[in-house]
Amino acid sequence: MDIKVILPVISNTLTEETKKEVEGYASSDTKVSVTIIDHGPASIESEYDEALCQPGFLEKAIQAEKEGYQGIISDCLADPGVKAAREVLNIPVVGPGEAAMQLATSLGNHFSIVTVLPNVVSMLENLSKVSGFYNKLTSIRDINIPVLELNDKNRLKQGLFEEMKRTIEEDGAQVLIAGCTGFVGVAEELQNKLKDSGYDVPVIDPIFAATQMLKTMITMNIKQSKLTYMTPPDKERI
Amino acid sequence: MDIKVILPVISNTLTEETKKEVEGYASSDTKVSVTIIDHGPASIESEYDEALCQPGFLEKAIQAEKEGYQGIISDCLADPGVKAAREVLNIPVVGPGEAAMQLATSLGNHFSIVTVLPNVVSMLENLSKVSGFYNKLTSIRDINIPVLELNDKNRLKQGLFEEMKRTIEEDGAQVLIAGCTGFVGVAEELQNKLKDSGYDVPVIDPIFAATQMLKTMITMNIKQSKLTYMTPPDKERI
Amino acid sequence: MDIKVILPVISNTLTEETKKEVEGYASSDTKVSVTIIDHGPASIESEYDEALCQPGFLEKAIQAEKEGYQGIISDCLADPGVKAAREVLNIPVVGPGEAAMQLATSLGNHFSIVTVLPNVVSMLENLSKVSGFYNKLTSIRDINIPVLELNDKNRLKQGLFEEMKRTIEEDGAQVLIAGCTGFVGVAEELQNKLKDSGYDVPVIDPIFAATQMLKTMITMNIKQSKLTYMTPPDKERI
Amino acid sequence: MDIKVILPVISNTLTEETKKEVEGYASSDTKVSVTIIDHGPASIESEYDEALCQPGFLEKAIQAEKEGYQGIISDCLADPGVKAAREVLNIPVVGPGEAAMQLATSLGNHFSIVTVLPNVVSMLENLSKVSGFYNKLTSIRDINIPVLELNDKNRLKQGLFEEMKRTIEEDGAQVLIAGCTGFVGVAEELQNKLKDSGYDVPVIDPIFAATQMLKTMITMNIKQSKLTYMTPPDKERI
Amino acid sequence: MDIKVILPVISNTLTEETKKEVEGYASSDTKVSVTIIDHGPASIESEYDEALCQPGFLEKAIQAEKEGYQGIISDCLADPGVKAAREVLNIPVVGPGEAAMQLATSLGNHFSIVTVLPNVVSMLENLSKVSGFYNKLTSIRDINIPVLELNDKNRLKQGLFEEMKRTIEEDGAQVLIAGCTGFVGVAEELQNKLKDSGYDVPVIDPIFAATQMLKTMITMNIKQSKLTYMTPPDKERI
Amino acid sequence: MDIKVILPVISNTLTEETKKEVEGYASSDTKVSVTIIDHGPASIESEYDEALCQPGFLEKAIQAEKEGYQGIISDCLADPGVKAAREVLNIPVVGPGEAAMQLATSLGNHFSIVTVLPNVVSMLENLSKVSGFYNKLTSIRDINIPVLELNDKNRLKQGLFEEMKRTIEEDGAQVLIAGCTGFVGVAEELQNKLKDSGYDVPVIDPIFAATQMLKTMITMNIKQSKLTYMTPPDKERI
Repeated sequence: MDIKVILPVISNTLTEETKKEVEGYASSDTKVSVTIIDHGPASIESEYDEALCQPGFLEKAIQAEKEGYQGIISDCLADPGVKAAREVLNIPVVGPGEAAMQLATSLGNHFSIVTVLPNVVSMLENLSKVSGFYNKLTSIRDINIPVLELNDKNRLKQGLFEEMKRTIEEDGAQVLIAGCTGFVGVAEELQNKLKDSGYDVPVIDPIFAATQMLKTMITMNIKQSKLTYMTPPDKERI
Repeated sequence: MDIKVILPVISNTLTEETKKEVEGYASSDTKVSVTIIDHGPASIESEYDEALCQPGFLEKAIQAEKEGYQGIISDCLADPGVKAAREVLNIPVVGPGEAAMQLATSLGNHFSIVTVLPNVVSMLENLSKVSGFYNKLTSIRDINIPVLELNDKNRLKQGLFEEMKRTIEEDGAQVLIAGCTGFVGVAEELQNKLKDSGYDVPVIDPIFAATQMLKTMITMNIKQSKLTYMTPPDKERI
Repeated sequence: MDIKVILPVISNTLTEETKKEVEGYASSDTKVSVTIIDHGPASIESEYDEALCQPGFLEKAIQAEKEGYQGIISDCLADPGVKAAREVLNIPVVGPGEAAMQLATSLGNHFSIVTVLPNVVSMLENLSKVSGFYNKLTSIRDINIPVLELNDKNRLKQGLFEEMKRTIEEDGAQVLIAGCTGFVGVAEELQNKLKDSGYDVPVIDPIFAATQMLKTMITMNIKQSKLTYMTPPDKERI
Repeated sequence: MDIKVILPVISNTLTEETKKEVEGYASSDTKVSVTIIDHGPASIESEYDEALCQPGFLEKAIQAEKEGYQGIISDCLADPGVKAAREVLNIPVVGPGEAAMQLATSLGNHFSIVTVLPNVVSMLENLSKVSGFYNKLTSIRDINIPVLELNDKNRLKQGLFEEMKRTIEEDGAQVLIAGCTGFVGVAEELQNKLKDSGYDVPVIDPIFAATQMLKTMITMNIKQSKLTYMTPPDKERI
Repeated sequence: MDIKVILPVISNTLTEETKKEVEGYASSDTKVSVTIIDHGPASIESEYDEALCQPGFLEKAIQAEKEGYQGIISDCLADPGVKAAREVLNIPVVGPGEAAMQLATSLGNHFSIVTVLPNVVSMLENLSKVSGFYNKLTSIRDINIPVLELNDKNRLKQGLFEEMKRTIEEDGAQVLIAGCTGFVGVAEELQNKLKDSGYDVPVIDPIFAATQMLKTMITMNIKQSKLTYMTPPDKERI
Repeated sequence: MDIKVILPVISNTLTEETKKEVEGYASSDTKVSVTIIDHGPASIESEYDEALCQPGFLEKAIQAEKEGYQGIISDCLADPGVKAAREVLNIPVVGPGEAAMQLATSLGNHFSIVTVLPNVVSMLENLSKVSGFYNKLTSIRDINIPVLELNDKNRLKQGLFEEMKRTIEEDGAQVLIAGCTGFVGVAEELQNKLKDSGYDVPVIDPIFAATQMLKTMITMNIKQSKLTYMTPPDKERI
């Protein structure tokens, strides 16, 4: 199957790594194409960034369906453009935030998200309310590292490990979400390290979760309900 | 006080009428400026339209603060761009959806929205979940008239009256929201007509509610919390 | 417009100050009349006080409508008598607790109340459940100063500032309510002081919020739904 | 044990019947005293009536504790004065509304209340929200008979049977509350009649439930938490 | 009246003490029979134990109804087998978890459970969600003592006292549940000790609560709704 | 990968068909083994059946882990034994009810379940509350056909189609769950038929969803949190 991963940013920093990882996540039966957008922000760290990236994301998503892709991932934990794309497309559209929270919800009673910056906390909280997962969301913490500095993997892993331990010990977290799609390829190592510290809890990689969720939908031949996500009426849009 | 109303659409159909109405709503101590946006959809009838209008809306909102306006209204019931604008601005930003639901919540135990098309129902439902008003939202119905056909006032008022009566009699609605900012200047007449039919219930005009809410914030010298709506980090955005 | 503020207590301690403040809050187009009640408690610091003040409050409220006032405020954060008055009157009746929580709900994701005494915490919690704002209420703290000692403004402001900082730092509050209508005229100073401490959050003065809410209703020509607040049947009442 | 039932009304219409019934409900080990109040409404059919009856109810409740009664029931489904009395007294205080809903909650997944008039629906809804039982409350219907006409037992039973059947068939009710303490002595007959119609569901008599709840508390030597219902501060109250 | 208490375990450790206590709880008009089951776990400290004990519990419950008992208690805070027994029996079936939470809900705004081991926390949390009491459940703590070591009463009481104080001071608990039916006969002493420490809060003994709840149902001639707990279809079961 | 599907019943009626279907669902990289249990009911149509099947299910689940299977499915929509198995096993355990509801939650705003008999409605409702999906569950309807008569495929498909249409038109369902794992291999045909009737909504096959969910977990190397599902203490269990 052919899937399209759209990084809703103008920066190419994460493109190669994302392609490599998602190909690993998706297994050999799946062809993965990764793209960035033409106009928008360099990274998503606010509602403002989310608002700016959506037209560019939607343009790429519409094009991907035309090119024959069978499913789309919006590669950011805030799921920018997912609802709009679900309306205009007839192939499944998946967001990593929803996919990760959905999985977290079924693995334990209380999950937490550890993310990049305090700026995105309210946005993720709102996403969980709309998606229906707020009732099991226990806390959102951040490591206070901007997206464009995530390439320092040691600092990243150390920050995540410390905050994840804190969510377990202070907030009662039982399941953890590595709360940014820029946290590529670190979830399993963190899961092992937490287990070594006495906490046998799942750590969810959201882009891995999104890849699997999308493959599930394509395999099951299901997509978003067109009664929830109705096709928009035709009109002038410039 | 000086307030800016931004119609997040490229069509000028409603500009004049909106200006006239909001001036009436705001009273003589308030200077009202109304503008449309440069790029986006002709009307908002889907998540897709909402996504497309936000960059244009934000551009106008940022400009308005620079020009010295004291507050902003996003003139669409789905409150497009309100959260993003609250982050980037230091003046209050108000959405008619939230303002109307807030008022509805305090006037009775069960409120309903009667809107334009089935396409926007999920979007409004989601807004009520994020805003915290879903617990009193009883139903959302529509009159099945597109925004750009709302100028037929008789058809509009007849459709609204019939659906409003239905929400009271079948859904248990006790408070009503005229669910589109394109329903300009009809709320009071509908309220009177419902009273004549035996239902003494408030019918809320959302753009009237937003105007009053914004004036309240300016008068009280309060605005959105910057702990919820943090200022976005600087970065490249094109 | 003419509005009546009823202090549901027998003590005149706050009457003058309240009149002065509400006149300031209401602007020059509004005539404000303030009264206390004939029978009841000296202050409201319990469900017991709330129960005792209601007949006296209702008597004054009914009289005010007869005298031609266009709206009523019950001047206590617990909103005593508001629901009953909404039933018997055909003019809008507003409570400062509901008005403040409503405003708080739309300014951020988590709000807290800082009030007088631990005795009123459950009562305010219950009010937020009935009003529909419990989902965004993060905590209620108190400064442990009885209502009748609130005239020591320095002690009051110091206590409020400290507890407000604590709700932000320990409870995650993003919006604050100055949780007693006896906290007259301190909200803006507290807001400034918190901003100087690095917390740019709104501090809501509940009687200011109630005044604006009432003006909004009168201006919009709306009042409580008579399907929620039905007119009570005639009967003997002594 | 000695318990006091306070009818929070000035009418003696139900006193004798209530005494007879509650004595039956309480069994021979319990001495039941029933009283009305000195000032207030003839019946409770609105928030307004509830507000008016509370001072009179509290006077009788305080007196009852002084006379050595071990527990108090406020004999009206809206539980008027219960919270205030829990503050000022050190013996358990029980309301039939809360007692009935509590029992209903544990007997099935969806319960409904069938009450006297549409006027009390919002009041009961609010009670269920504060008490924590709103999540299983499916509907509230009424038989449209005022309290003071409940002595026509045939009309009463016929009305209740019809509305109860409707809540089962149309609203999905699985447990029923005979929703007024004036519906004395009819629950079991209705339960039997519904069973004959194919619906083997419990019908709860609220004053019976309150009597049993109060006996339970006295027997277990527990009462309301004084951290929720703190003793009110001393002050002038006239 | 004749009631049957089924300890859903194969160990006789608590049988005698339970019989003695429940007889005390039930008063002289009630004949109490206590039994253990033939197959299952020695104690209930996990979902696994709960799953294993249910067939044995149901066997004894069915037999008890045949022998003429008027009601059943499943003697474990997790209420194992209660829902299944409510389906197959036509007499009331009560669980101590639900009975205690129901009582806790009506005595204050926030209740906590202090139980045996961390292993049962999620199970009790789930029970509170199904029963409808999660909205007032503030925390669940444990004393980290296995059920089969509860006979060391001093260690038990000391552990419970310390954790209960902590739930009040750190979690805001206002009502407490002694969270295991193996905590026989300690609630009142703990209540007194907490009162001496300044906390006048109820401490609920769950098996006492269940006994009273069952007596209430038998006295009121009500039982579980057969629309919620339908009689299972006949089929082969081996 | 090797997965074990345990039909928690003693009847072999569905074994062959389930094996064939799940193999199709799982794709060629997965070896599927299907088994029934040794003791329990012939089908699951009540809480009673669920209680009876759990020891047999757990026995097979423990054995499967020992034999090297990498994951377990409890093949019944009520997810019997899933929580207990998650405690005792260190491989992922999935229930079709939770897997289907999780997927439904992310495909639309309102989902409904159409199941076999009215007897299982409360049980599924409870499952949705514990799993956290009750907030999007709109209704549960049944086709009134017992599990052991499901082999009449035409009657089954006709019944499902009619009830599914009804949930869309009368309950507002936007996503559908084919609510019994005995409804093997009919979801896609129903989805097509509903689309032909104008309703482009997903119809979820729960055992397909469970298979994909389990594969996702094995691929991502995650399993249930051992802080939620703690390993049960050792003890005598017979």
